[in-house]
Amino acid sequence: MEFEHSEQARTVMAAVERFIREEVLPQEESYRDQLVASSDYREWKIPPVMEALKAKAKALGLWNLFLPDADLGAGLNNRDYSPVAELMGRSPIAPEVFNCSAPDTGNAEVLYRYGDDAQKEQWLMPLLEGDIRSGFAMTEPAVASSDATNMQATAELRGDEVVINGQKWWTSGVGDPRCKFLIFMGVTDPEAERHRRHSMVLVPMDAPGVRILRMVPVFGHMDEPHGHGEVLFDNVRLPKAAIIAGPGRGFEIAQGRLGPGRIHHCMRAIGASERALQRLCERSLGRIAFGKPLANLGGNRDIIANCRMAIDQARLLTLKAAWALDVHGTMAVLTDISAIKVIAPNVLQMVVDAAIQIHGGEGMADRELNWMMGMARALRIADGPDEVHRAMVARLELGKYQ
Amino acid sequence: MEFEHSEQARTVMAAVERFIREEVLPQEESYRDQLVASSDYREWKIPPVMEALKAKAKALGLWNLFLPDADLGAGLNNRDYSPVAELMGRSPIAPEVFNCSAPDTGNAEVLYRYGDDAQKEQWLMPLLEGDIRSGFAMTEPAVASSDATNMQATAELRGDEVVINGQKWWTSGVGDPRCKFLIFMGVTDPEAERHRRHSMVLVPMDAPGVRILRMVPVFGHMDEPHGHGEVLFDNVRLPKAAIIAGPGRGFEIAQGRLGPGRIHHCMRAIGASERALQRLCERSLGRIAFGKPLANLGGNRDIIANCRMAIDQARLLTLKAAWALDVHGTMAVLTDISAIKVIAPNVLQMVVDAAIQIHGGEGMADRELNWMMGMARALRIADGPDEVHRAMVARLELGKYQ
Amino acid sequence: MEFEHSEQARTVMAAVERFIREEVLPQEESYRDQLVASSDYREWKIPPVMEALKAKAKALGLWNLFLPDADLGAGLNNRDYSPVAELMGRSPIAPEVFNCSAPDTGNAEVLYRYGDDAQKEQWLMPLLEGDIRSGFAMTEPAVASSDATNMQATAELRGDEVVINGQKWWTSGVGDPRCKFLIFMGVTDPEAERHRRHSMVLVPMDAPGVRILRMVPVFGHMDEPHGHGEVLFDNVRLPKAAIIAGPGRGFEIAQGRLGPGRIHHCMRAIGASERALQRLCERSLGRIAFGKPLANLGGNRDIIANCRMAIDQARLLTLKAAWALDVHGTMAVLTDISAIKVIAPNVLQMVVDAAIQIHGGEGMADRELNWMMGMARALRIADGPDEVHRAMVARLELGKYQ
Amino acid sequence: MEFEHSEQARTVMAAVERFIREEVLPQEESYRDQLVASSDYREWKIPPVMEALKAKAKALGLWNLFLPDADLGAGLNNRDYSPVAELMGRSPIAPEVFNCSAPDTGNAEVLYRYGDDAQKEQWLMPLLEGDIRSGFAMTEPAVASSDATNMQATAELRGDEVVINGQKWWTSGVGDPRCKFLIFMGVTDPEAERHRRHSMVLVPMDAPGVRILRMVPVFGHMDEPHGHGEVLFDNVRLPKAAIIAGPGRGFEIAQGRLGPGRIHHCMRAIGASERALQRLCERSLGRIAFGKPLANLGGNRDIIANCRMAIDQARLLTLKAAWALDVHGTMAVLTDISAIKVIAPNVLQMVVDAAIQIHGGEGMADRELNWMMGMARALRIADGPDEVHRAMVARLELGKYQ
Repeated sequence: MEFEHSEQARTVMAAVERFIREEVLPQEESYRDQLVASSDYREWKIPPVMEALKAKAKALGLWNLFLPDADLGAGLNNRDYSPVAELMGRSPIAPEVFNCSAPDTGNAEVLYRYGDDAQKEQWLMPLLEGDIRSGFAMTEPAVASSDATNMQATAELRGDEVVINGQKWWTSGVGDPRCKFLIFMGVTDPEAERHRRHSMVLVPMDAPGVRILRMVPVFGHMDEPHGHGEVLFDNVRLPKAAIIAGPGRGFEIAQGRLGPGRIHHCMRAIGASERALQRLCERSLGRIAFGKPLANLGGNRDIIANCRMAIDQARLLTLKAAWALDVHGTMAVLTDISAIKVIAPNVLQMVVDAAIQIHGGEGMADRELNWMMGMARALRIADGPDEVHRAMVARLELGKYQ
Repeated sequence: MEFEHSEQARTVMAAVERFIREEVLPQEESYRDQLVASSDYREWKIPPVMEALKAKAKALGLWNLFLPDADLGAGLNNRDYSPVAELMGRSPIAPEVFNCSAPDTGNAEVLYRYGDDAQKEQWLMPLLEGDIRSGFAMTEPAVASSDATNMQATAELRGDEVVINGQKWWTSGVGDPRCKFLIFMGVTDPEAERHRRHSMVLVPMDAPGVRILRMVPVFGHMDEPHGHGEVLFDNVRLPKAAIIAGPGRGFEIAQGRLGPGRIHHCMRAIGASERALQRLCERSLGRIAFGKPLANLGGNRDIIANCRMAIDQARLLTLKAAWALDVHGTMAVLTDISAIKVIAPNVLQMVVDAAIQIHGGEGMADRELNWMMGMARALRIADGPDEVHRAMVARLELGKYQ
Repeated sequence: MEFEHSEQARTVMAAVERFIREEVLPQEESYRDQLVASSDYREWKIPPVMEALKAKAKALGLWNLFLPDADLGAGLNNRDYSPVAELMGRSPIAPEVFNCSAPDTGNAEVLYRYGDDAQKEQWLMPLLEGDIRSGFAMTEPAVASSDATNMQATAELRGDEVVINGQKWWTSGVGDPRCKFLIFMGVTDPEAERHRRHSMVLVPMDAPGVRILRMVPVFGHMDEPHGHGEVLFDNVRLPKAAIIAGPGRGFEIAQGRLGPGRIHHCMRAIGASERALQRLCERSLGRIAFGKPLANLGGNRDIIANCRMAIDQARLLTLKAAWALDVHGTMAVLTDISAIKVIAPNVLQMVVDAAIQIHGGEGMADRELNWMMGMARALRIADGPDEVHRAMVARLELGKYQ
Repeated sequence: MEFEHSEQARTVMAAVERFIREEVLPQEESYRDQLVASSDYREWKIPPVMEALKAKAKALGLWNLFLPDADLGAGLNNRDYSPVAELMGRSPIAPEVFNCSAPDTGNAEVLYRYGDDAQKEQWLMPLLEGDIRSGFAMTEPAVASSDATNMQATAELRGDEVVINGQKWWTSGVGDPRCKFLIFMGVTDPEAERHRRHSMVLVPMDAPGVRILRMVPVFGHMDEPHGHGEVLFDNVRLPKAAIIAGPGRGFEIAQGRLGPGRIHHCMRAIGASERALQRLCERSLGRIAFGKPLANLGGNRDIIANCRMAIDQARLLTLKAAWALDVHGTMAVLTDISAIKVIAPNVLQMVVDAAIQIHGGEGMADRELNWMMGMARALRIADGPDEVHRAMVARLELGKYQ
């Protein structure tokens, strides 16, 4: 047992922590102001401060930290990247600053592991440069996506082409003007074995037949300038070379993508929880009612203690999942990954709810707390709802006795 | 013990239920569309469908149902109006249709009970006609409003005038183009006995010195076309006749206003809970995953049962509070009013959270569920946060043994 | 809506409250001492103080209060008896003092409603006199009793006799030396329609073939001098006249028995909750730590408030169920009865757990608090576990939309 | 980060796990039977099977595993002993088998670290041999022990003697016929600095003036043959040499004792939680109702998943606390120790409650589940109640911002 992070992790953590503190946090307000000033509903623009921050981070080598490859990225394994992801989770804009924001990270990993040279050249390189962004089109509006066999979109092979049809939503990032391609998942061979039916296809945003029907609000927010799209794929024809790793491997790729992706999400949620708890504590010390700081009133200290205990436990289980994924591989961490996917967003929701409550009227209007509440609530649904992950944990537990 | 509603209550309930089902619910979408089409951030407009619905309801006598006066209103006491308020809570637009929406209801009651003839003539009558709307300016941004002694705004007597200064926020309804006056609460005599310091003043919106600094978002929503304002009162000079019931009676009036107001809020929250539970049930029956309706998966039936049990209990306690307020008066219901003010919003939050969860991705985007979530979350803070009300319940409980 | 109890209820409540306060509570310790002094594991004796208290209560007419018949009992309907049952729930020995303890109350009701004259003469009369006691043999050790179709015990018709075989447990009251008969439920016709298979049979304790295998501890307590038995029925032969209401009506009788029985259990649980909350409050005021009474430390006031709110809600729903049972009958209260059967024991468990916690080391040893904890925990299982009742509530709720 | 246990830990774990499985678990019933047969309330006897098991474990070197000294014990540090303690927590009799049961472990550590040679010779050696047992007398009945400054017992210096007076309870182990000495804590110098007032004194059980007033039941159980005593110290005169580490060091010793002790308690609670979860799972698979195993009914899988997630998180935080105690020392783990002291017993209580519930009637009578419930409930109070530990976590958290 050794709970200290590796030296490499600590070095990156220190640099990222300092950069966020000195460069990112002070710019959060400018970012927001620029966003409001330059954007309207139909055409979002990227706040210039973001590109400036990206350039600075890139210059310092704080770039693509999620990618385990030491040449293209930082060469951190999951357990070393996890605490870095937590730090980024403290700010809504930090992940992008370090070119570490979803869904680009997951898409880059897919291309890195499964892409051929041409695909890497065309899409992975500009993505890793931070020149373009990308989307991921998997969830569908008409069916319960928690059950993957429900998927209705198709990626049919016709001669040299793959022809794509279907309607997707929660295609995150698709509203970003820099978004140049999507990874699309659809059924290629409905007769194949259950896990060999789907393909993943690289779809340029400007391919004929790709149409954004609307941007979908998430708890009232559009999450501009990235957003979540409902996208129609109407007979989109692409060369077969657009299929990643060949037809029928979509499910396999999705599974490999989800493990690290869920760990990143959870660590960011834990980072956000820390920020929310900090807000809670500061407010409880700074605000006076009935002659006392709120911290000395009622059950507020119990709430603070419960938050601290929940966060620390969630972090350890997430780190353990990251470690086990590194050391023992995907099949050994099914319980842990599902567990943290339930725990971390629920912890964040609890902490943020408490932070909002202690802020009173200000908590209702506070942009940051509201961002975190939306993040928590959405994460309890995205990438598999709580219910599906609890069922997985229970199934594996009961399996020990069957 | 008799749990049946009175005949008068049942008659009104049946008419309101039918009107909401046949007239209001089918227009919710038009209302929303008209709102989006006609409004922008700076200038909100009232959707014409609302005025049409109001006219219809008024013609049927379903109007001012909250007012206990049989001539000006429906003559319902609190226990008879409560189930009617629950019905209205099922739709975000229903209360206004029947001229029963906050803060007008509370303001009307204040004028009805404490206003003089001139005040009634000028403000109460057009309010009851539905021609104008109003706001209530009590909460302040800089201090913990849960402790009333913190109030910093002033209503000073100078000669024949009362001079108002201070900054308020969560002044609800102030963004509505029909809002013509506010009831403002401020300190008149800081040296007086603790409950005789404040006055309530009728402030025309167009009085010189009244300035809306901004509309405050509540969990990301502006609640247009009514909205919540941050309002500056900069040396607003009004004749002394603008003071309701004379100087120093602000606290007393506020107390009297809050009992019925909290009951109304809670009953509407219970109505909203019923709608959320209905949505939850319908979705759980209609959506299929893993070959079964969601209702037959995992713990969903336990969730449904817990919602039903929580709602039924909350309703009974709220009705009992309403009954006790009618029969035994304000001082006899302090525990019950504080209790329901904690319970009803928390029940709504729990039910809506469950309804969102079972809707998956759709739950994140659903306008109605999001409206109810915002309502629940705001109600846990507005009119006294949970903490203050729990403290009150505990204080009264411990008082039995001291 | 009328939340005041009827005049008749208030009269009985006042008398019972006074009798418990003046006569029963001061004798609780003597009762316990006499029990310890006179009993050992194999042969329990009734503390003389109990018979003395019963005589006093009987002389005052505070007797058989549960029986709706005005001649044989107090003539109270369910909604009038409920608050009386709550009062009795405050003391572990009070129900028996008023001849109102389970399972005698349920057995008496069954005989009153379904028994023939001979059965009433032989068993009901001495039961109502308080001369004998009785048991109820339904639950079986080998199968899930939450599913009644699992029942394996038999009551077969052979000529003029009914022959009983099977093994039961949780046959409450069977260890009491005054227990003279059991009501036994078994399968008579396995081929009959599902709800016409079972019979209820009156079994004298001294019938050949009735054997108590052991007394079963409930959370470490034997509940002497009544106890819960595991009972073997080995070819017990009785005249057919021992069947209540004729063969095949067991299920019907059981259903009718359970509604009022559950209400009584819940009201007693609420009474016990009130006593636990009183203990909690008194301790929080009387015990000093870190220079303050515990009531002023940490979240203790929140705990007190939560207990008060939970109790008040549980009571109202139980009273409403009692009222609805009186007014609308069994089929109209299925949701309410199942709901309170979940709620009341869980509320009691929560309140007692909090009361134990605030008592610290004393809470671990306190006889009264431990009695109440066992009562709460057992009630979450007896008469249908939480899970079965939640499932019933959900089924009825979903039924509205199917 | 490395979540694998050390090789040494794994070796001991494997041996202990095998011994428990092959030797201890099969003897649990004999132990209980022998206990019942040979003991009565006044004079408890040690079941012979225990001494036989101890001899076997000792012969295999599975002995004194808690002691960090490699000669006298196993030489395991806290992080290596912790998973071993978890294994022992699965059986109520296992800790004693390996000479690792409280309060002997804590007492041995105190003597090992602070005792002089004579004290070690007289008391430590026979304790480590397993020839005698011991008690710990700290908690007092009349005051809130959560606040150490409340302590009223005294250990006054008079000439060459220390004179002990006071009344203690929850003096665990004092009913064991092998218990030969107690460690007693009392005030020596009430005028000294707050943390220099108390002394710890070694008190032979047969010293004149030591009187066991009664054995105190814990949730209805006596925990024979060890038990928890209420003990009167009436002018007990001992040579000054009986004071551990000299006068005034009681508080310091207590602090040092509590860290590892709480970790042991928590790990055993986690081991018990695992056993309870196993029982829950096995029952849910083996019991049929409504045609399905309970595991496929209602929310039972959610319950199982929640238990698994809670246990895994609690274990990691406890292991981290053990690691940090080894590496960074007592002052660095105040938050973690308080956190696990809240978390582990509450997790156990939740899991056992769920296991009892799924066992229905059997759960009420099951000895093992009841043992674990008592253990959980007592641990939420012993060694500092939840409230004190939550307050500590909150104080340290708020301290970051002050």
